[in-house]
Amino acid sequence: MDTTEEHQKAVRAVLDAALAEGRTALTAPEGKTITDAYAIPTPAEGLAECADEAVALADRIGFPVALKIVSPQITHKTEAGGVRTGLRSTAEVRGAFTGIVTNARAYDPQARILGVQVQQMVPSGTEVLVGTVTDPTFGPIVAFGLGGVLVEVLKDVTFRLAPASSDDALSMLDGIRAAEILRGVRGGAAVDRDALADLVVKVSRLAADFPEIAEVDLNPVFASASGVMAADVRILLATEAPVRRRTYTREEILVSMRRLMKPASVAVIGASGEPGKIGNSVMRNLIDGGFPGEIHPVNPKADDILGRKAYKSVMDVPGQPDVAVFAIPAASVPAALEEVGRRGIPNAVLIPSGFAETGEHALQARIVAIGEEYGVRLLGPNIYGYYSTWQDLCATFCTPYDVRGGVALTSQSGGIGMAILGFARSTGTGVSAIVGLGNKSDLDEDDLLTWFGEDPNTECVAMHLEDLKDGRAFVAAARATVPKKPVVVLKAGRTAAGARAAGSHTGALAGDDAVYDDVLRQAGVIRAPGLNEMLEYARALPVLPTPRGDNVVIITGAGGSGVLLSDAVVDNGMSLMEIPPDLDRAFRAFIPPFGAAGNPVDITGGEPPATYEATIRLGLEDPRIHALVLGYWHTIVTPPMAFAELTARVVAEFRAKGVQKPVVASLAGDIEVEEACRYLFERGVVAYPYTTEKPVAALGAKYAWARAAGLL
Amino acid sequence: MDTTEEHQKAVRAVLDAALAEGRTALTAPEGKTITDAYAIPTPAEGLAECADEAVALADRIGFPVALKIVSPQITHKTEAGGVRTGLRSTAEVRGAFTGIVTNARAYDPQARILGVQVQQMVPSGTEVLVGTVTDPTFGPIVAFGLGGVLVEVLKDVTFRLAPASSDDALSMLDGIRAAEILRGVRGGAAVDRDALADLVVKVSRLAADFPEIAEVDLNPVFASASGVMAADVRILLATEAPVRRRTYTREEILVSMRRLMKPASVAVIGASGEPGKIGNSVMRNLIDGGFPGEIHPVNPKADDILGRKAYKSVMDVPGQPDVAVFAIPAASVPAALEEVGRRGIPNAVLIPSGFAETGEHALQARIVAIGEEYGVRLLGPNIYGYYSTWQDLCATFCTPYDVRGGVALTSQSGGIGMAILGFARSTGTGVSAIVGLGNKSDLDEDDLLTWFGEDPNTECVAMHLEDLKDGRAFVAAARATVPKKPVVVLKAGRTAAGARAAGSHTGALAGDDAVYDDVLRQAGVIRAPGLNEMLEYARALPVLPTPRGDNVVIITGAGGSGVLLSDAVVDNGMSLMEIPPDLDRAFRAFIPPFGAAGNPVDITGGEPPATYEATIRLGLEDPRIHALVLGYWHTIVTPPMAFAELTARVVAEFRAKGVQKPVVASLAGDIEVEEACRYLFERGVVAYPYTTEKPVAALGAKYAWARAAGLL
Repeated sequence: MDTTEEHQKAVRAVLDAALAEGRTALTAPEGKTITDAYAIPTPAEGLAECADEAVALADRIGFPVALKIVSPQITHKTEAGGVRTGLRSTAEVRGAFTGIVTNARAYDPQARILGVQVQQMVPSGTEVLVGTVTDPTFGPIVAFGLGGVLVEVLKDVTFRLAPASSDDALSMLDGIRAAEILRGVRGGAAVDRDALADLVVKVSRLAADFPEIAEVDLNPVFASASGVMAADVRILLATEAPVRRRTYTREEILVSMRRLMKPASVAVIGASGEPGKIGNSVMRNLIDGGFPGEIHPVNPKADDILGRKAYKSVMDVPGQPDVAVFAIPAASVPAALEEVGRRGIPNAVLIPSGFAETGEHALQARIVAIGEEYGVRLLGPNIYGYYSTWQDLCATFCTPYDVRGGVALTSQSGGIGMAILGFARSTGTGVSAIVGLGNKSDLDEDDLLTWFGEDPNTECVAMHLEDLKDGRAFVAAARATVPKKPVVVLKAGRTAAGARAAGSHTGALAGDDAVYDDVLRQAGVIRAPGLNEMLEYARALPVLPTPRGDNVVIITGAGGSGVLLSDAVVDNGMSLMEIPPDLDRAFRAFIPPFGAAGNPVDITGGEPPATYEATIRLGLEDPRIHALVLGYWHTIVTPPMAFAELTARVVAEFRAKGVQKPVVASLAGDIEVEEACRYLFERGVVAYPYTTEKPVAALGAKYAWARAAGLL
Repeated sequence: MDTTEEHQKAVRAVLDAALAEGRTALTAPEGKTITDAYAIPTPAEGLAECADEAVALADRIGFPVALKIVSPQITHKTEAGGVRTGLRSTAEVRGAFTGIVTNARAYDPQARILGVQVQQMVPSGTEVLVGTVTDPTFGPIVAFGLGGVLVEVLKDVTFRLAPASSDDALSMLDGIRAAEILRGVRGGAAVDRDALADLVVKVSRLAADFPEIAEVDLNPVFASASGVMAADVRILLATEAPVRRRTYTREEILVSMRRLMKPASVAVIGASGEPGKIGNSVMRNLIDGGFPGEIHPVNPKADDILGRKAYKSVMDVPGQPDVAVFAIPAASVPAALEEVGRRGIPNAVLIPSGFAETGEHALQARIVAIGEEYGVRLLGPNIYGYYSTWQDLCATFCTPYDVRGGVALTSQSGGIGMAILGFARSTGTGVSAIVGLGNKSDLDEDDLLTWFGEDPNTECVAMHLEDLKDGRAFVAAARATVPKKPVVVLKAGRTAAGARAAGSHTGALAGDDAVYDDVLRQAGVIRAPGLNEMLEYARALPVLPTPRGDNVVIITGAGGSGVLLSDAVVDNGMSLMEIPPDLDRAFRAFIPPFGAAGNPVDITGGEPPATYEATIRLGLEDPRIHALVLGYWHTIVTPPMAFAELTARVVAEFRAKGVQKPVVASLAGDIEVEEACRYLFERGVVAYPYTTEKPVAALGAKYAWARAAGLL
C-alpha cells in the first residue's frame, strides 16, 4: 500500500483542524477520514443528524447496524450510554437514535453533539488490538495483541518501532503468548495473517508519517479467515513537539570516536603530581599503562608532572590533541571546555561529578551547549574514564587493565564499571575497551556502538544501561552493528518502570520495559537478564564460533547432567537435534550397550577418555550436527584434566581443518574441574564448573545473535 | 460442607454401576447425582425421554432452558449436534428435542440414547474451570483456571493436591496470571470468592474420597458476585488401581535412617585391598575419613584388608552392623542382600550399577522384594554412596569431604553428586550429609527428608531430583520439615515433560511440570531454577537469619547497583520498604546532600567507610527494617576489605545484641572484592562479587522459606 500525497493531505487537514481547535481527541468521522486515507478497513458508516437520516443510512449500509454518539467531549461512548448495537430494523434504529442522544445530553449537558454515527455491524472474528503510541525513548511504536479484558490483564501485547515492515508485523502475530489463537484452535479457523499484518503495517506508517499523532487505538479489530476490520478507532494528538538536539552524521561520529579511542595525543586538564588526587591517578594510569602517544598535563600551578612538561592552559598544549581528560571540579569545567573547543580538541572526557546527578542541571546544560557550539563531543560527566586496551590507553582513575581481546564493555554506572573490571581481571577476559558513560550529556551508547561496529579489534559489545537518550539512534546503530558482531545489553530499571498516564489501551499496555524488551529484540540485541549474565556472555561470545544450523547435540557422561542440560537447551531457545538412525548407530558404536544414544547421547559415567574423544569427534565430524554441549562427570577413569586436554585437542584439530562448531561444556566434579574449565575456555571451549545452565545460556546467546544477524 | 455417609453411598452406587458396565465415562444424570451428593451447584435439570416430558420439565424449571443429548456413547455432545441452548418457549423445546435426537442418531447410529437432558440456563458470569485429575506422581490433584480457549492456549491453570483446604483454594484464585479478572476489572463485579473456593474444595474432596474417579471436569463454571454454578460436568473413571508397595511408618523410617546416618558399625561387602577397585576406595574413604565406629570388610578371598580383619560372609561379621555397603557386581547383590536381611542389618547401601538404569528391571525388582521381605532399607542401587560428615563417615568411592556444617544435600544422579562435592569444597560450604539416591529402588527423598527434618546437625536440605516415586509421601515429609528448616529442590526434566494422553481439559492442562511446580510450592519447598542456584541457596540459607518482616532496604554506594538490586528484589518476590519520613531524615543525616535517600539509600560512591558503617548501623538498629541488601562500590576511599571488615563487625555487634536480620551484599569492584566476599560469607553476610542477582536471589529464597514456614 502506498499512501498518495492526496491521502496524506486529507490526513493533514484533519489533524490541522483538530489542533487549531485545541483538540487532542479526534471524532469518529475524523478518524474515518484518516483510516480511509490509509486504506485501513473499517465498517461502512455515515453521520446522521436526525433519526430520519439514521434510518436512511442504515437502509443504504444494510442491517444489522450499530449507532454511536459523536461528540468531541464524549470519549467514553459506552459509559455515556451512547452506543447501541445489533439494530435490525428501521424502528429499532429510530428508537436508538433518540435514546442515544437523550443519554448523551444527560451524561454531559455541556457536550456538543455532532450527531450519531450509523455503522455496519462488523463480521465476527477474533478480537485483536492494533495501536500506536509515541514512546518517550523510541518515538512512534506500533502495538499488537488480542482484544478483550483478559489480554489486557495478562499484558499479552507486543511492540515494534513504527513504521513496521511486513516481516516485523508477521513476527508480531507470532510474538504474543496467545499466538496459537490466531492459527486457529479447537476447530476455529486461522485468521488471514497477511491481511492482519498489512493492517499493522498501515497503522504503523500512519503514526510514523504524522508525528503529531500521539496514539492510535484500533480496538477491537475483528480478524477472521476472510479478512480484518477495525470496529472502533480512537486517535489522540500530541500538543508538544520533542526537543531537538545537535546531531552528528555517522561519518562525523566515526571521525571523533576514532580520535577518542585511538588518540595520538592526550591532554589531562587538572593533572596533578599529588598522590590521592584524581588528576594524579589519571596521569599515573596513562603513563604506567604504557600509552605510547603524547601525554600533556595541564595545571596552572606546575611546570612538570610525573616527569612530563606541564602547561598552564590547554591553549598552550602543542600539536593536535585528540582527547582532553578533565580531572577538575565541576564548577571549573565550562571555562576549560571553552578552551578545549577553541583549541579544536574533538573529545572531552569529563570525569568530574557534580552535574545533573547531583541536581546541577543548569551546569550540565551549559557544558552541553559549549560542546554543541564547538562540536566537542563529551564523554560523561560523572564517569571513571575509559580504557582502550589495544592502544595501552588507561584514561581512568581506576586500576590499569591490559588483557587485550575482543570485548568492548560500556557502563552507565561507575560501580558497574568497576564490576566489569574486576570480572574481566578475574576471568582473564580479553577486552578491547571499557567505557564509562555516566550522565551521557552527549556521547552515548549509539555513538559507541557505531564505533565498535567498525573497530576491527572489537568482536563483541556489551553495554549496561539504565535508559537510552535516543532509542531510534540506538536501534539504528545496533542494526548496523549486529550483522557484524553481537551486541549484549543489560537494561537496568526493568521493574522500577513506573506507571505512565495513558489515554488509550495501547498506551496503558506500553509499559516501559515491555517496549524496551520488544524493540531491543527487534534491533537484534541480546538482552542479558542480569549483570553476571552480561559479563559471562561478553566473555563467552567471542570464544564461540558461529553455529551454521539449529542441530544441538548433548554428549554427556552423567545422565543427570544430560537431563539438566536438555532443560537448559529448551529454556535458552534452542532445540535438541532429532538424531537420524544412521547417526544413532554411529554413536552407539562407541558407548556401552546400556548407554543411551538419542539426544542427549549418554556415554555413561564409567567411560575412559577414549569414549569422550570418539563421541566428540563424531559430533564435530558429522555435518548434520551444528553445536555440541558436553556434560562431563569427574571419575578416576577420566580425570578433569584428561577430559579438558582431549576435548581441547579434538576441537583444535577440527578447527584447523576448517570445522568451526561451537562447543560448550558443563563440568560436574571435584575442584579440579575449575582448572579444567579455565584450560578449556582459553582454548575456545566455553566451560563452567558446578552449573549446567551457564554454558548453555552462553550458547543460547550465540544462537540468538546468529539469528539476529541473519546467519541462520 | 460435610458429605454424609448417605451421600457417599449414592456416589459409590453410581461409580459401581458404571464400572460394572465397563464404562469409564459417566452420563450427565450420573454426574448430576454425584455433584448433588457433594452439594456442587449445577443447574436444575431432568431427563426427558420424549418431547412431552421435555416440555413439562422446562415448565417446571422455568425458561430459558437448554437441551442436551444423553448417551453413554456420545461424549462430545456439541459435535454430535446434541446441544441446543436458550430455548424460550414450549414450541422451541419441542422442536429442539426432535432435532437433537435426530442429529444424535445420524452422528452415531449405534449409540444408545437414554433421552435428553433439560437444563436451567445458567446465569452469566466469569467462565472458570474446576477439575481434578489423577497425577501419576501426586495422585488426585485439583485444577483451577479461567474457562475458554484463550486460557487453554495460555495454560493459565493452577494445581493443588486434593483434598484442598479453603486456604489452598483461595490461594488458587490468586495463583493464576489472570487473577485480576476474578477481582473485577473495567467495571466488572468481583466474583464471590468464598463460593468459588468452596466449589474447589468440594470437587477436590470428591476426587480424594473416590480414587476410582480419574478426572472431573467442571467446564465452564459460571462465577459471579452472586455465586457459582457448574454448567457442564464430565467425570471419567479409572480402570486400573495403582500398585501398592511396602510402606514404613515415620517411626520406622527414623529408626533405620538414624542407624544409616549415625552408624556404630559398617560392613563393606566386596571390600578390597586392591587399589582402583570400588571396594578399595570405599574402605580407604571410611578409614581415611576417620570414621570412629567399627569397619568390617567382607571378602571371601581375604583375611585382612587395609589392616582390618576381613570376613568371608556378612553372616560372620560380629556385633550389630547398622549398614552394609555393597561394592560387588550387580549379579551378586541378591544373594548377599539375603544374607544382610538374615543378619538383621537394617540398611543396604547399593553402590553397584547394572540394575534398572541398564534395563535390568527384573534384577532390581528382585532386590526390592528381598528388601521388603526382610525390612532392609535399600539406598540405590547405582550410587556413589553417602557422606555423614558429623560422624566422619565417608561411605563412597569418591574423595572424602570433611567440612562439617548445616547443609544436607542429596542427588538422584551421580554426576550431580560430584558437582555438589566440588562446589562445597570450592566454597567451603559446611555440610551435614551428601547422599546419592540413584535408582531409588527403596529409600527416596521423603525418607531422607523425614530424617533430615529431625537431624539437629541439619539446618537446610537441598535435593536434586528427576522424579518422585511417591509425590504424596514427599509432600507429607516436606510439610513436616519446612516449619523447622528450608527445603530446596532442583527438579530436573522440566522441559522434557512429554505430552500425556488426556481425556479432559483438566487432564490436558496438567503438564507434568506445571503440577510439580504448584505442588512443590504448596508443600513449602523452594524450587531452584538451576543446579548452581540450588548449590548457592544451600550455601547461603543457613548463613542468613530469618527475616521478621517484609521491609527490605537497599543501601548502596553505587547508584547503578541500586537500580539492578531493586530489579532483583522485585524479581525475587520481595518488595522495597517505603521509608517513613523520620527514617528518611535519619539516613539523610549520614549521606551527601546529593545522595538519594528513599529506597535504595544511595550513599554515593566517594564515601568513606564511616558512611557505610553509619547507614548499615541505622539499617540494623531501626526495628521497622527487616532485611538489608548492600551494594558496595570499590573506591580508594573505601577499599573492599575495609567494607568487609566494617560490615562484618557491625553485623556481629548487632547479632550479639540479639538483632538478627539477614544482610546480603553485592560487591562491584576489582578482584580484591572476591576476598572480601569470602570474608563476609564466613561471617554471616551472604556476599557475591560481579553480580547483583545472586545475593538478592539468596535473600529471596530465605523469604520464600520464611513465608512457607509461617514465620512471616
